[in-house]
Amino acid sequence: MTVSDSPQHRTFLDGLAHSESGRLLQEELRRRWPETTDELASMARFALVPAGKLLRPLMALHTAQAVGGDPQRVTAAVLALEYVHTATLVHDDIIDGDDLRRGRPSVHAAYGVPNAIVAGDGLIFSAFESLVDEPWPASPARVVAAVGELAEVGRELCRGQVLESRLVGDPEEGARWYEEMVRLKTGALFRAACYIGATLGGAGADTGTMMASYGENVGIAFQIRDDLLAFVATPEQTGKPGDSDLLNGRPTLPVLLAYEAADEADRRELRDVLGRRAAQEGDVRWVRDLVAASGAVESAHRRMVSHVELALAGLAGLPPSPHATALADIARWTTSGAR
Amino acid sequence: MTVSDSPQHRTFLDGLAHSESGRLLQEELRRRWPETTDELASMARFALVPAGKLLRPLMALHTAQAVGGDPQRVTAAVLALEYVHTATLVHDDIIDGDDLRRGRPSVHAAYGVPNAIVAGDGLIFSAFESLVDEPWPASPARVVAAVGELAEVGRELCRGQVLESRLVGDPEEGARWYEEMVRLKTGALFRAACYIGATLGGAGADTGTMMASYGENVGIAFQIRDDLLAFVATPEQTGKPGDSDLLNGRPTLPVLLAYEAADEADRRELRDVLGRRAAQEGDVRWVRDLVAASGAVESAHRRMVSHVELALAGLAGLPPSPHATALADIARWTTSGAR
Repeated sequence: MTVSDSPQHRTFLDGLAHSESGRLLQEELRRRWPETTDELASMARFALVPAGKLLRPLMALHTAQAVGGDPQRVTAAVLALEYVHTATLVHDDIIDGDDLRRGRPSVHAAYGVPNAIVAGDGLIFSAFESLVDEPWPASPARVVAAVGELAEVGRELCRGQVLESRLVGDPEEGARWYEEMVRLKTGALFRAACYIGATLGGAGADTGTMMASYGENVGIAFQIRDDLLAFVATPEQTGKPGDSDLLNGRPTLPVLLAYEAADEADRRELRDVLGRRAAQEGDVRWVRDLVAASGAVESAHRRMVSHVELALAGLAGLPPSPHATALADIARWTTSGAR
Repeated sequence: MTVSDSPQHRTFLDGLAHSESGRLLQEELRRRWPETTDELASMARFALVPAGKLLRPLMALHTAQAVGGDPQRVTAAVLALEYVHTATLVHDDIIDGDDLRRGRPSVHAAYGVPNAIVAGDGLIFSAFESLVDEPWPASPARVVAAVGELAEVGRELCRGQVLESRLVGDPEEGARWYEEMVRLKTGALFRAACYIGATLGGAGADTGTMMASYGENVGIAFQIRDDLLAFVATPEQTGKPGDSDLLNGRPTLPVLLAYEAADEADRRELRDVLGRRAAQEGDVRWVRDLVAASGAVESAHRRMVSHVELALAGLAGLPPSPHATALADIARWTTSGAR
């Protein structure tokens, strides 16, 4: 489940998407990906348009503007973050066998697995192309730094994906590696968004580091929020069956915290349920009861809030501006509706 | 079939691989990819080490040196070309269901398809990481140009792959699109190798363009050579069953030229055989006879030679050096053994 499925999220992010920055990105995206007879570009367009909330490029754009950058110069470049994000969705959908994405066929469902593998690869290359497209969004040295960040983070996304696969069905290892997995799988691309926004916007190295920390912590908080929604929101609210992560044995924070708090008998039972991959409804009810009784929801919430606080601390050095405010709102919004 | 499977190729390229430039690259590759417990890096290492002939980075390195560049500065960067090449092999093997690569299990056979999808993605990100790693191999503006070339060419590789899939089993369309497909699928990455080598080595824009043309034409000649070997070499010589492309309906130049030269009855029969995907031995003999009778081998050979001549013309502006000689040898060598 992605956090963008919840209705509260939709209301807040619809506002962001219709802001001036959001409209800039939407227009650039449509300009860059027109209807075409080229098959690779058609698949990319199918995956990218109509766009999601463009949260990562939006955060990059706000960051660039918050440090005094010119939005016109960086709009095309920050879409790189959406291309990488979308590439991971295209490949993840193949891996998970998910035939639907945002209510439409996933790319492999529409074009077949071989084409979808290649389409995802093409999106990764497009990301780097858009970062270095002329006119360059900043000085060459800054562009090189942005490329380095995106490349490093891309590898972290891959490491996160491999790590998550390994942790499926194993709450013992899941509890040990959860923070690392979430940092790689979700935090990294948000970190890149804000670091790249700051770098292309002209910020100094210290501000870049602070913004990277802001982004990473927002990303981690978002992922914990996602994990929480399955326990505090109804499927109608989230727009997605609330038990899918559980049925697939995926490591989510409330379950892992419940595991850590459980006695040995319950731990053994939980390992059984998660390891089975085809858990039954009765199992799911039992896990939900265990999570509820353990206080895991509350402690996951506390952990999410602490990441939001770290994120806000990363913004401390920014001069006041509507963009700094938007970034703070995004961080604070994370905690809404997840309790 | 890749051309590197033929013994003549092996002898020539073994020499290249054991040259000083080859040793530099091998050492850098081993240093960059040590044994590790990181799962993503382990898969990358499995795909990369022991290395193939490193032909693309070798050509990049020779090009950089031929224009006066310092090999030590660019060795790590030009390995980017091997990472992208290997990423496409990893993903192609998934798409084609090939469980063997260079006599070892392919990555998906060893680690499973989900991990192999992610491993290929990781190699693409590693390519960009290695291009921009500090100390930068050239001025930031030159590094940005190299990133742009690799990103653009990466997308061309993807377009070539999609195009080839569409042409399988259809010699009518295959004949029309063959040059474009080969330029995208094989020419592009050789072009990038030589353009990036020239750019990082300090060449001017004109030399970069000339070297790009050299590389692209070598790549196209290599692919035609590959296509030819199935008709002029024995499987013992090539180390690979000579009929696999034919049995899979893949568009190879001798077959496409035979198709163009054939009368309507033979064309219909050829469309049937190639479209069937599970062609029989009798079919294969019939196609081989048709190709032999049509003079298609000779005309494919002529086309290959004309690309070699174009490649050599691209070298005309280089000052004499062992590296310029090595590049000319690589181009000329292409035509050996393919007749």
